[in-house]
Amino acid sequence: MKVYLDNAATTPVDKEVFEAMKPYFSEKYGNASSLHSLGRQAREVLEQSRDTIKKKLNAKNHNLIFTSSGTESNNLAIKGIALANKDNNKNNFVSSRIEHGCVLHSLRWLKTQGYKTTWLHVNKEGFISLQDLNESITKNTLLVSIVHGNNEIGTLQDIKEIGKICHDKNVLFHTDACQSFTKTPINLQKQNIDLLTINSHKIYGPKGVGALLIRDGIELEPLLSGGGHEFGLRSSTENIPGIVGFAKAIESIKEQDIEKMRLLRDMLIKGALEIKETWLNGTENNNRRLCNIANISFKKVEGESIILHLDNKGIQASTGSACASKSLHPSHVLGAIGLKPEDSHGSVRFSLGKYNTKEEIEYTISNLKEIIEKLRKISPFK
Amino acid sequence: MKVYLDNAATTPVDKEVFEAMKPYFSEKYGNASSLHSLGRQAREVLEQSRDTIKKKLNAKNHNLIFTSSGTESNNLAIKGIALANKDNNKNNFVSSRIEHGCVLHSLRWLKTQGYKTTWLHVNKEGFISLQDLNESITKNTLLVSIVHGNNEIGTLQDIKEIGKICHDKNVLFHTDACQSFTKTPINLQKQNIDLLTINSHKIYGPKGVGALLIRDGIELEPLLSGGGHEFGLRSSTENIPGIVGFAKAIESIKEQDIEKMRLLRDMLIKGALEIKETWLNGTENNNRRLCNIANISFKKVEGESIILHLDNKGIQASTGSACASKSLHPSHVLGAIGLKPEDSHGSVRFSLGKYNTKEEIEYTISNLKEIIEKLRKISPFK
Repeated sequence: MKVYLDNAATTPVDKEVFEAMKPYFSEKYGNASSLHSLGRQAREVLEQSRDTIKKKLNAKNHNLIFTSSGTESNNLAIKGIALANKDNNKNNFVSSRIEHGCVLHSLRWLKTQGYKTTWLHVNKEGFISLQDLNESITKNTLLVSIVHGNNEIGTLQDIKEIGKICHDKNVLFHTDACQSFTKTPINLQKQNIDLLTINSHKIYGPKGVGALLIRDGIELEPLLSGGGHEFGLRSSTENIPGIVGFAKAIESIKEQDIEKMRLLRDMLIKGALEIKETWLNGTENNNRRLCNIANISFKKVEGESIILHLDNKGIQASTGSACASKSLHPSHVLGAIGLKPEDSHGSVRFSLGKYNTKEEIEYTISNLKEIIEKLRKISPFK
Repeated sequence: MKVYLDNAATTPVDKEVFEAMKPYFSEKYGNASSLHSLGRQAREVLEQSRDTIKKKLNAKNHNLIFTSSGTESNNLAIKGIALANKDNNKNNFVSSRIEHGCVLHSLRWLKTQGYKTTWLHVNKEGFISLQDLNESITKNTLLVSIVHGNNEIGTLQDIKEIGKICHDKNVLFHTDACQSFTKTPINLQKQNIDLLTINSHKIYGPKGVGALLIRDGIELEPLLSGGGHEFGLRSSTENIPGIVGFAKAIESIKEQDIEKMRLLRDMLIKGALEIKETWLNGTENNNRRLCNIANISFKKVEGESIILHLDNKGIQASTGSACASKSLHPSHVLGAIGLKPEDSHGSVRFSLGKYNTKEEIEYTISNLKEIIEKLRKISPFK
């Protein structure tokens, strides 16, 4: 049996998405900047795709810029705001200790350029404190950047409230919604979001495409200079097949898929926790956790060994974010919720997808029980 | 008849390229950073693709970083070198007046950060003067960036000599080879290139993929911070289908395609120049011009009108670079070779591809003659 439980790392491209992209490779292949009919055809589908995604987000007062990835969108939001404001004396950012690596490293890079970041702690469930946030915003704060659904433990922050606090203090709010997009509602009119990062390959669309939503009137310095594509904010010939696929993918996850993922996630958690010296990381409030993520710690075993043994049984999971999977450092997210390094090392992230079945989860639980028992027998940690 | 003569703007994805990419969308869809077998499979094909392209360029002492576009590669080369050297007092760049918009605008952006650029003039054929280059390099020069094959007039610079001058003066040399790659030999061992930009969608590969070759030992500051992909120089989940397509596309143009494009280009030039008050822009030395580009000026007519009339006949060409096609400013490249603005406005770039036929070129010439005659009759310029 093959069981893919690493959907937070990436998802397969849906058949309908692939079919929608297909004509744009070799038939309707025009450059969207060309004046002739093939170019105008590309421009048209580019703008349709933009409108489709904006509509999904109820983005009436936001523009949408296509980028190459969630990482690029997060870099553009954070560095773009910093560079556009470098002459106005504001040089402070507020972020959390459980951001995706690209937010962390963008802010660390800005430190080398004279900017500062206030890093908000999270509690053991993975939530920031709204009071801390309120107190951390100063007159020098340019931007608050807080991830919506965390990629390792699945905790969903209350972005509407976070945005409200930012707006009450006249500060911009950016959120990385790569994991939450299409799995939980995002409404740019109702929630108080100024800048929103989303991407395609987490939602059954192609790799190589992301987007940044930007509230009208916000100025950003582009990272890619050139021909002035994407309203002057992101030069590069537009990746039309990828963009068409992204727009198609926003309907990939249906309400019943979310419900199914929730049930299977809870079934997986229940089964895994039957193993002793094991616990669930992040919140137990299922309404405040992504429908598809379960991060579980197993005492006295190495996460990597679990991953490889599961893989031998056809089950694919992860020790944390895929980007950081080759790092020997314990996860900064698990550290932030209070895990000791040795406990972090024994953690596995299972991230479900809409194609998983009950049989697959049963198979996973039964194999997991065997593997943990086996690994603990040979474990040097007693 | 449909005649696509805008191959310098973009090319269709070849059937073999598409077939090579196909399994990586929905079957072999792993994240190349994942530890499990699906991830390792993605990592493997990523490294194979990297090796394939490096081999094509004889890149023994260079690394290859995949990016999302030629624009991104040029930005990374130029801004990356600037930012990596900001503490060493060198702050000068040398470039030419006929660079692609992304090189021009990267250097203009760097001006706002305290860097300077010496812009080399070109002669009426579009060549820089090697003596000028030699004299323009100072002890403050960080990088020389000169385009290999110009995208508007097709002039091929002598990059080997340019590189030699740079190396004699201990200065780095970058070249944008997006138009020339696969159409004229590039050998990183024999030519004196430190940084090389190439991309995929100009060579019958997919949009959304480019690469930067970097000589070992050269330090660059990344533009995209994050998970540390691509040797820490370009974070973002790797676009595996796009990368596989790029590697497959490097064999799309065969020796006989180049020969055919040359013949058809010369046939098109000859036919177009039978129209009076018409001339070819750029060099007449066919060994120093890209095999596929012919930029022709027609007195007393607007290039845009020609494009739209040609389009009505199924013939697709361009007024200049696609990126700049919506701009009302005359082409900076045509200005640099000495054209007056009114003559620039009457210029058309025909860029051939390997699928063009003799019949298509005959059809184009005959329509062009009719269109120019018609437009001149109604022209306000007498």
